[in-house]
Amino acid sequence: MKPAAGKRIFIQEVVLRDGFQMEPIFIPTDVKVELIDRLSRSGVAKIEATSFTSPRAIPALADAEAVMHRITRVPGVVYAALVPNARGCERALECGTDEVNVVMSASQTHNQANLRMSCEDSLRQFTAIAQMAREAGTAVNASLATAFGCPFEGTISASRVMELLDRIADAGIGNVALCDTTGMANPAQVAELCSQVRQRYSQLGLTAHFHNTRGMGLANVLGALEAGIERFDASLGGLGGCPYAPGASGNICTEDLVHMLQAMGYHTGVDLDALLALARWLPEIVGHEVPGQVLAAGPSSRRYAPPAACSV
Amino acid sequence: MKPAAGKRIFIQEVVLRDGFQMEPIFIPTDVKVELIDRLSRSGVAKIEATSFTSPRAIPALADAEAVMHRITRVPGVVYAALVPNARGCERALECGTDEVNVVMSASQTHNQANLRMSCEDSLRQFTAIAQMAREAGTAVNASLATAFGCPFEGTISASRVMELLDRIADAGIGNVALCDTTGMANPAQVAELCSQVRQRYSQLGLTAHFHNTRGMGLANVLGALEAGIERFDASLGGLGGCPYAPGASGNICTEDLVHMLQAMGYHTGVDLDALLALARWLPEIVGHEVPGQVLAAGPSSRRYAPPAACSV
Repeated sequence: MKPAAGKRIFIQEVVLRDGFQMEPIFIPTDVKVELIDRLSRSGVAKIEATSFTSPRAIPALADAEAVMHRITRVPGVVYAALVPNARGCERALECGTDEVNVVMSASQTHNQANLRMSCEDSLRQFTAIAQMAREAGTAVNASLATAFGCPFEGTISASRVMELLDRIADAGIGNVALCDTTGMANPAQVAELCSQVRQRYSQLGLTAHFHNTRGMGLANVLGALEAGIERFDASLGGLGGCPYAPGASGNICTEDLVHMLQAMGYHTGVDLDALLALARWLPEIVGHEVPGQVLAAGPSSRRYAPPAACSV
Repeated sequence: MKPAAGKRIFIQEVVLRDGFQMEPIFIPTDVKVELIDRLSRSGVAKIEATSFTSPRAIPALADAEAVMHRITRVPGVVYAALVPNARGCERALECGTDEVNVVMSASQTHNQANLRMSCEDSLRQFTAIAQMAREAGTAVNASLATAFGCPFEGTISASRVMELLDRIADAGIGNVALCDTTGMANPAQVAELCSQVRQRYSQLGLTAHFHNTRGMGLANVLGALEAGIERFDASLGGLGGCPYAPGASGNICTEDLVHMLQAMGYHTGVDLDALLALARWLPEIVGHEVPGQVLAAGPSSRRYAPPAACSV
């Protein structure tokens, strides 16, 4: 854990998708667009802006097209969207999405529960979507959910992850996020798995995606950093989470992540104050408090006036 | 961050002192005694049971003598108490306290604000208390507050910490806790400072004491583990905290710490289920929710029945 000496780390904001899809209310399109536009100017590297899913499945994201059309794109920022199937991919491509994000679970049971299909069917779909995206010149990222553990099946073996990464590579997909969907990973496991994956797939664009379900979110980031991971998904305010862990924290919190990385000497390119201003706006948007800690405490650079008794 | 292969880590519970002293209510002595007795059987290595301070200064801990006399001591568990001055030390020694904990801040301004005396005066007091304790055959630990940063002065230099550790050693004290009192430390800083301290004071009994004020608590534990630290203070449920960070999290949470360490392969000797049962009791004791995450989500070993749609 040496001081990081300005090493570049890429922050990928998922609050619009992973965060808002969990909220029971419909957040107005205007608000989403303003939030994306302000995030675009904050220095994050990628914004998962929405999901091109069925409006019946996720009413909160029923305005995917409107959002993508109305945002002001900042050069250098990647605007990604989740696509659950070929139809979703078509919709995303029509909107000029920079990167389509496809999702499957490493666990067969979780894939069935979450996506109502087998892992084989998911991989077939990945191949079809990757082909569509390639023809459109659009990047693809595959998010491998439950890569560190499944709430139904338990620990997921490294060999299972490797088997699926082989298949994902076969599908022509060059970017993968290893996702700890329900916050089961621990830092030693993260360091070990990420290191193995990086050794075996040196060309893969690799993202780590953690949830803070059991308080280990930022600790797991350290495990991934040790393994050389440079890209992290995170959610403003720490929104997001998992239906199987009611009351638990959500995704790792973007501003807490950036705050830690900057304190350690990493270069994120992100304006922490701008992120904090957006995080401060979130409770009003979603109608409840958010788990972010730096929002509550202020950054560690915050100084207080000593009590009067100290001045003597 | 290699798998830990059963390395022993010592868990030191501070909820009775660092946690309860922040609570606005008086927790009945019976409850404190029952909590300590159940913690004693959970496998923690040390329990800071109370503070022998003035009942006017901290009414919540006005029953220090009664607590120490009524607990059932488990062999192998160290029962510690904070002593703010020589009078407090006398009281602690009369109660057969195993270890007296003295506190000063690395920051002059924080020492003045928190203890209303200069660092020099604190060191003089340390010398007197250490002598009293030595004559009674009682161990002494010095907690060095704001060792990683001060909310008034900012960053505390490693050389300042070393200067104070020299003086603490001169006072005849062989155990020190480096305390991140207001949650300003980051993992790189922790690894660096702890490593320097261990190299220079190889005989010192060294504890790391972190707060989760800015979400980095368990990440900082990883920095300390990398530097070879084996003893950690933590507070059940994550109670505790700091008057300068209203709304922020408190001390690192004992059950979250034990959960992470065990998942990483460390041997804590602690029964996590027993800790969780006690953490579940805490909201009733203090009258509000507590920040612990594993309490909300369950341990990562928790399994869920797949939805019915998965069974096919």
